[in-house]
Amino acid sequence: MHTLKGIDFLEKYGQFVKDRATIECEYASKLRRLVKSYQPKKKDEDDYQFTSCKAFKALMNEVNDLAGQHELVAEDLQANVIKELTALVKDLKEERKKQLQEGLRLSQSLQAQIEALQRAKKAYDKAYKEAEKAIEGFQKADADFNLSRAEVEKQRSNMSHKTQACDSAKNEYAQQLQRTNELQRQHFRSGLPEVFRQLQELDEKRIKNIKNFIKASVHIERNVFPIINKCLDGILKAADIINEKEDTMLVIEKYKSGFQPPEDFPFEDLSKSGGGSDSGSANNINNIAMSGKLKDGGYTVKGTITGKSMKKRTGLFHIFGSRG
Amino acid sequence: MHTLKGIDFLEKYGQFVKDRATIECEYASKLRRLVKSYQPKKKDEDDYQFTSCKAFKALMNEVNDLAGQHELVAEDLQANVIKELTALVKDLKEERKKQLQEGLRLSQSLQAQIEALQRAKKAYDKAYKEAEKAIEGFQKADADFNLSRAEVEKQRSNMSHKTQACDSAKNEYAQQLQRTNELQRQHFRSGLPEVFRQLQELDEKRIKNIKNFIKASVHIERNVFPIINKCLDGILKAADIINEKEDTMLVIEKYKSGFQPPEDFPFEDLSKSGGGSDSGSANNINNIAMSGKLKDGGYTVKGTITGKSMKKRTGLFHIFGSRG
Repeated sequence: MHTLKGIDFLEKYGQFVKDRATIECEYASKLRRLVKSYQPKKKDEDDYQFTSCKAFKALMNEVNDLAGQHELVAEDLQANVIKELTALVKDLKEERKKQLQEGLRLSQSLQAQIEALQRAKKAYDKAYKEAEKAIEGFQKADADFNLSRAEVEKQRSNMSHKTQACDSAKNEYAQQLQRTNELQRQHFRSGLPEVFRQLQELDEKRIKNIKNFIKASVHIERNVFPIINKCLDGILKAADIINEKEDTMLVIEKYKSGFQPPEDFPFEDLSKSGGGSDSGSANNINNIAMSGKLKDGGYTVKGTITGKSMKKRTGLFHIFGSRG
Repeated sequence: MHTLKGIDFLEKYGQFVKDRATIECEYASKLRRLVKSYQPKKKDEDDYQFTSCKAFKALMNEVNDLAGQHELVAEDLQANVIKELTALVKDLKEERKKQLQEGLRLSQSLQAQIEALQRAKKAYDKAYKEAEKAIEGFQKADADFNLSRAEVEKQRSNMSHKTQACDSAKNEYAQQLQRTNELQRQHFRSGLPEVFRQLQELDEKRIKNIKNFIKASVHIERNVFPIINKCLDGILKAADIINEKEDTMLVIEKYKSGFQPPEDFPFEDLSKSGGGSDSGSANNINNIAMSGKLKDGGYTVKGTITGKSMKKRTGLFHIFGSRG
C-alpha cells in the first residue's frame, strides 16, 4: 500500500533531520572543545594584558557563542520538527490501521455474500439436475404403457416435487444474486472508495506535513543567522582591539627598566686623594639626567669598573645569548 | 624575549585557524556522507516520480552544496590565512635571529672593550704602585748621607723611569677609558636601541598581521553566506514542489487500474439455452460504461461466479490483509 511506503518515507525524512541535528551538535561540540583547548593557561595569564591576547580571548568567546547557535539549531530541529514528525507518524500509522481494518471488514462481508451466492448457485445446479432427471423419469414412465398408474403418479409427484425444489433453489439463487450484486455495487461504489478516500486524506496530510517540516527546518537554520552574524561582527570588533603600538610599548616599558643606559666609567686618578673619581663624576651626573630616571636596583651615581657593579653591567648582555 | 613569545602566540593562533578549518572540513564531510546515505536506491527509483520524493532529492542536492561551502571555508582558510601565517612565522623567526645576533655582536664588542679597560686600569695600578715605591726609594737614598752619589743617581733614574711608566700607563688607561665610554654610549644610545627598534618593528608587523588574519578569517566565513542562503532558498523551493494532490492522484491512478469496479454477477438461468447469462449482460455493459475504461488483463464483459474469474475478483481483497 502506498500509505505505508509514504509513512516509511516520512520516517526516513525524520531520520534525515535527526542525523542533520546530530551533525550540528557534533559541530558545536567540536567548536566548544576547540575553544576550551585554546583557553589561556594560568601561567600565561600575564600575557593577556596584550591587546592581541585580549582579542584572541574575545574571539574565542564569539566562537563559543557560535557553537551555541548550532546547538540551538539542533535543539529546535528536535523540538519543532522531529518531535512533531514522530507524533504524526504514530497518528498516521494508527489511522491507516483503522482504515485497513475497515477495508478488510467490508471485503470479508462481500466475500461471505459471494460464498453464499456460490452455495445457492450450487444448490440451484443440483436441484435443476434433479428436476431434469425427475422430468425425464416421469416422461419415461408416462410413455411406458407397462407401468402401473401408481408408478406413473409416483414419477409425476417426484417431478412436481423436484421442479418445485428447483424453482425454490432458483429463487434462492436469484435472491442471493441480487443481494450479492447490491452489496458488490455498494462495496465498490461507496464502501471501498470511502476507505480509499480516507487513506488518501492521510496521504495528503502526510505530504503536506513533509512540506511544512522542510520549511520549518530551513527557518530554524535561518533563525540563527542574525546571531551568527553578530558573532562574526564580534570577532571583527575583537580584531579591532588589537593595537600593535600599545602592545609593543608594553614590552618596551617592561624591558626599559632593566636597560637603563649605564653611566660613563669614571676616571680613577690614583695621584688624587683616596683613589676617588674626578672628571667622571660630572659625566655620571649628566648621564643620569639624560636617561631620565633611576630605577630601584639600578646603577648608583658612582660606578667603578671593578667589583660587583661590573658584573651587573654585563648581565644585560645575556639577553642576546638565550634561545638564539 | 617577548618577540619569541609573540611568535609562539602567532603560531598558536595559526594552529587555532588550522583546527577551525579541520572542523569545517569534518562538518562538510559529514553532510556529504549524510546525503550519500539518503540517496534513493535503484529499487526505489520508481518512488521518485512523487513530488515529495523529488523535493527530498532536491533538498539533498542543496545540502550537498551547503557542504561544499563549508569545504570552501576550510580551503580559503588554508590558502589565505594558514599559508601566509606560516610564511610570516618563518620570516619573523629569521629576522629575529638576525637581530639577536647583531645584539650579541654589539654586546661582545663592548664587553671586549671593557676588558681592555680593566687590563689598562690594572697596568696603571701596578705602574702607580711601582712609581710610588721608586719615589720612596729615591727619597730614602737622597736622605741617606752614607750612600754614594752613584747609588742616589741610580734611585733617581729608577724613580724617573717608573714615574714615566706610570704616566704612560695612566695615559693608556685614560685612552681606554675614553674609548670604552664612547663605545658604551654608542651602544646604549644607538646600537642597542636600533636592535630593539628592529625587534619592535617585527613585533608590530606580527601583531598587525594577527589582526589582518582574524579579519580575513571572518571575511572567508562571511563570503559563503550568500551561497548558503541560496541553498536554503533552494530547500524552500524544493518544499514548494511538493503537491499533495498531485502525489495522491498518482497513487489513485496507479491503483485505479487494479480496482476497476467489477460488473454485476449475471443471472445464470439454467432453463435457458447453454447456461449463458441474460439480464447480467445488460448490467455488465452499463458497468463498463460507468467505470470509463477497460484495462488490459481486466475483466471481460462476461463474468461468471465460477472458475478463474472468481479467483481474480477475490484478489483485490488481499490488499487489506497484507502488512496490516
